[in-house]
Amino acid sequence: MSVLVVGSVALDSIKTPRADRPRLLGGSASHAGVAASFFAPVRLVGVVGDDFPARYWSLFRRHGLDLGGLRQAEGRTFHWSGEYEANLNRRRTLATELGVFERFSPDLPAAWRQTPYVLLANIAPSLQIHVLDQMRRPRFVAADTMDLWLNTAMSDLRRLLRRVDALVLNDTEAQQLSGSDHLVAALGRIHRMGPRYVILKKGEHGAILSGPAGLFLAPAYPLPRVADPTGAGDSFLGGMMGYLAGGDGPIEPRLRRAIVHGAVVASFCCEGFGLRRTDGIRMADIRQRVRALEKMVRF
Amino acid sequence: MSVLVVGSVALDSIKTPRADRPRLLGGSASHAGVAASFFAPVRLVGVVGDDFPARYWSLFRRHGLDLGGLRQAEGRTFHWSGEYEANLNRRRTLATELGVFERFSPDLPAAWRQTPYVLLANIAPSLQIHVLDQMRRPRFVAADTMDLWLNTAMSDLRRLLRRVDALVLNDTEAQQLSGSDHLVAALGRIHRMGPRYVILKKGEHGAILSGPAGLFLAPAYPLPRVADPTGAGDSFLGGMMGYLAGGDGPIEPRLRRAIVHGAVVASFCCEGFGLRRTDGIRMADIRQRVRALEKMVRF
Repeated sequence: MSVLVVGSVALDSIKTPRADRPRLLGGSASHAGVAASFFAPVRLVGVVGDDFPARYWSLFRRHGLDLGGLRQAEGRTFHWSGEYEANLNRRRTLATELGVFERFSPDLPAAWRQTPYVLLANIAPSLQIHVLDQMRRPRFVAADTMDLWLNTAMSDLRRLLRRVDALVLNDTEAQQLSGSDHLVAALGRIHRMGPRYVILKKGEHGAILSGPAGLFLAPAYPLPRVADPTGAGDSFLGGMMGYLAGGDGPIEPRLRRAIVHGAVVASFCCEGFGLRRTDGIRMADIRQRVRALEKMVRF
Repeated sequence: MSVLVVGSVALDSIKTPRADRPRLLGGSASHAGVAASFFAPVRLVGVVGDDFPARYWSLFRRHGLDLGGLRQAEGRTFHWSGEYEANLNRRRTLATELGVFERFSPDLPAAWRQTPYVLLANIAPSLQIHVLDQMRRPRFVAADTMDLWLNTAMSDLRRLLRRVDALVLNDTEAQQLSGSDHLVAALGRIHRMGPRYVILKKGEHGAILSGPAGLFLAPAYPLPRVADPTGAGDSFLGGMMGYLAGGDGPIEPRLRRAIVHGAVVASFCCEGFGLRRTDGIRMADIRQRVRALEKMVRF
């Protein structure tokens, strides 16, 4: 089955202590869409400017993304630039130029309103709600968010949470959203806001799924070297939703493996700038790391 | 088989945002010894002053520790006091009064020199070496250390590392010891210093074992509430070594389960001040959490 991916499509200029790479393909929908495409057909909803490079259109097409919802508008593509500290765990934003993204309204092609899997990548909660308003009883909806919306759009976010099956966020965001320092308590409070599944991203320490069947402690694939972690969270969610959409049967028993597949795609994402590493992998590479993780957690 | 536990026996005065508890039973050997005692006979080597409370002698005896190597000297017991920050992840030392520990020399009863399992809890590397000098071909030696020795006794530590099977340390210490920010690279460098097994403690994020069979990503038991993390690392190592000593057969295939048992004892340690919570658990409590963890990592 297909997965609808809605979010930002951007050009990222990224500085790390070792490199400085301008105008990479980035944005939450780009990372999530390509990650999902390894497992299921992807329908991409977003907007780019007239400066969006032809090679990035090609990249999307090479991964089989349906671009019927990717609008090209007059103006410049959303541009983000950021700089990472030495250990790549912290970053600061140098510039955010919204460009055509400022007036982005995710309006779905009519035929896409029945897409069963919906991935609301990180954009304003009001836009995420606007997408859900157009959908006809999707089977599974997962949303990402960020600290910006916790600080500026909490009431929208609260409304959104009542309508999603799964919320993905990092530990700092979970603390802020729940008002609790204690992880287990925080998860309980977020469930009461709506989502049946809460997935806590902990970067190199893995992720925690909380749901009706209890907790799942998901591993992260240990990497010898990280080049650029930008988009890892989006790749994680994309891989997870793609895996779910690509399989059969009830969600619950497949969710753990979906998360591990998401973690593996995210690990590849970190090994290259922008989408460069992810762009070059195959299903066999993903399977190999999933098998390696199976061995690494067994006891 | 028996495990020899050498380290500090102390009185800890601990402040957290919620409580202030003076003169708790603490020290690396106390935590490691009691943790190990759930699985195997323990021989405790340490020193206390004439102020060491009778109730703590009783506690050790209640857990079946052989105290033939716990000397009582004239003077005061080692006293440490520390304060934790709000989320209990950081602490600062308020006072360290060495007392009788200042002249501690771990001299083993002759009959103990053939103990097969040796746990060198956190004390000066020169003392850890002194213990090994007295041992006759131990089967398995594990050592703990801390940043203090990395800063002040690096050459002793280097000498020690050539003689231990397993080194346990946290991620900051691993970075400092190896000079590498990258975890996987750091592990490789530490192996080259001697230990066949390197076990990286990551607190609430679990632990990583690196050895000839590759990596094992060990989970931490998710706790709803932490009272006092003091001694968690010692409990972890104690539980692990006790489990190894209590079983049969080669080390390698049992090491992963040993680490998980150590992590579970450490989880109990965190739930009470000093040894209070650990003191009250039974084997059934440990088994229950190990089974729970098995379910939480399966995918």
